Amino acid sequence: MVPLYNDERMDYLLAEEHMHIIQSPSVFAFSLDAVLLAHFAYVPIRKGKILDLCTGNGAIPLLLSRRTNAELIGVEIQERLADMAARSIKLNELDEQISVIHGDLKDMKATLNHSAFDVVTCNPPYFRTSEKTEHNKNEHLTIARHEVYCTLEDVVKACKLHVRPGGKVGMVHRPGRLIDIITLFRKYRLEPKRLQFIYPKHGRDANMILIEGVRDGKADLKILPPLYIYHDDNTYTKEAEDIIYGK
Amino acid sequence: MVPLYNDERMDYLLAEEHMHIIQSPSVFAFSLDAVLLAHFAYVPIRKGKILDLCTGNGAIPLLLSRRTNAELIGVEIQERLADMAARSIKLNELDEQISVIHGDLKDMKATLNHSAFDVVTCNPPYFRTSEKTEHNKNEHLTIARHEVYCTLEDVVKACKLHVRPGGKVGMVHRPGRLIDIITLFRKYRLEPKRLQFIYPKHGRDANMILIEGVRDGKADLKILPPLYIYHDDNTYTKEAEDIIYGK
Repeated sequence: MVPLYNDERMDYLLAEEHMHIIQSPSVFAFSLDAVLLAHFAYVPIRKGKILDLCTGNGAIPLLLSRRTNAELIGVEIQERLADMAARSIKLNELDEQISVIHGDLKDMKATLNHSAFDVVTCNPPYFRTSEKTEHNKNEHLTIARHEVYCTLEDVVKACKLHVRPGGKVGMVHRPGRLIDIITLFRKYRLEPKRLQFIYPKHGRDANMILIEGVRDGKADLKILPPLYIYHDDNTYTKEAEDIIYGK
Repeated sequence: MVPLYNDERMDYLLAEEHMHIIQSPSVFAFSLDAVLLAHFAYVPIRKGKILDLCTGNGAIPLLLSRRTNAELIGVEIQERLADMAARSIKLNELDEQISVIHGDLKDMKATLNHSAFDVVTCNPPYFRTSEKTEHNKNEHLTIARHEVYCTLEDVVKACKLHVRPGGKVGMVHRPGRLIDIITLFRKYRLEPKRLQFIYPKHGRDANMILIEGVRDGKADLKILPPLYIYHDDNTYTKEAEDIIYGK
């Protein structure tokens, strides 16, 4: 049996699947952003190596394991979250495919080697640490959401370091940082190839972006059809439901 | 009377308006791109100065004159097109508001002064000159569509030179160049503030982008709701129709 601590609970990872994930409202719970990135990201089906930076409680590698037989490695700086991820992996009997490293993404060169991964995914902290209004008094949540331990540039740099030439880097972020992301992707020669914008409803501005870059790729961007999450009556759209329920 | 030459014809500028524009299938005809940019671009209503680079037959300043009392100046490198624009301006009795300069946007500093405009718009040539497949044997059309006389960087540089600090630069282009545009906007300190993607139909990739940057602006991007042009049955969507028919 896998233990649960304090206010942790065992949630279903996707509503219609038999996968579970350990989370806690006071420490970390995965969000729609992780689900959308795990759906958007390219993965090799049969073999290869995939790295997930800022893996939190491991939602992205757990979700990706449904689509690929590749080896999956998650890196998480918060020991408490890395431990939750490790227990969730065990809970789902995925120890042979997924592993979690408790460590700092800025310092993984010796452990993970450079250019070693076919795909790198990341759902990084969204907020600059100066954005006080969004700051959270809970330390775990603050680290997950704010650039306390790593800046966006640290993240992009680490993606570039670990992905192989021609390999893909997938990221989810907020529209307000799109220009920074594109500038940094270009700086680190991760050429953006696919962009998708997520809109909460028709007629609203986008509130999430999904981007995929190819290391040393040729400039040739596709902007995918937009994804709407809710109908006007606040029920999920068919396309969002299919992703969220893992159909 | 304004003369028409060769295969020129006098078209309605917007279907339900009383404005006309001179065009020619063998020289230049304005496209939906210009209409969308003229709709998307911010304009001061009562006064100010607006510059349109690569103005072609003057569609954008003509369209903008419906929304603003500002002075409008178009710059066009092809004498034949600048002449068409001048005759269209006369035809619509807009000589007092709009003027056209036959000249090279790379060389307008003395004529137009730096930092002199509240808004600069541009529907530039879309294709790199190396993209032979798209190359057109007709010289007029080739110059309008390909980077023969100016590169994207020349265009962005000219926008930056002529717009005042805090002024806005609006551009229409293809998704494949979005990353280049964003990189160049940042390089010339035109901070992207509004982005809109145009989709031909539901379920298709975007085929046009509209971008607005603010000179020396603070990073804070909004991604507007997407705009669809056609329904599945190839009739215009309501939103496209409203723009195209000038409602």
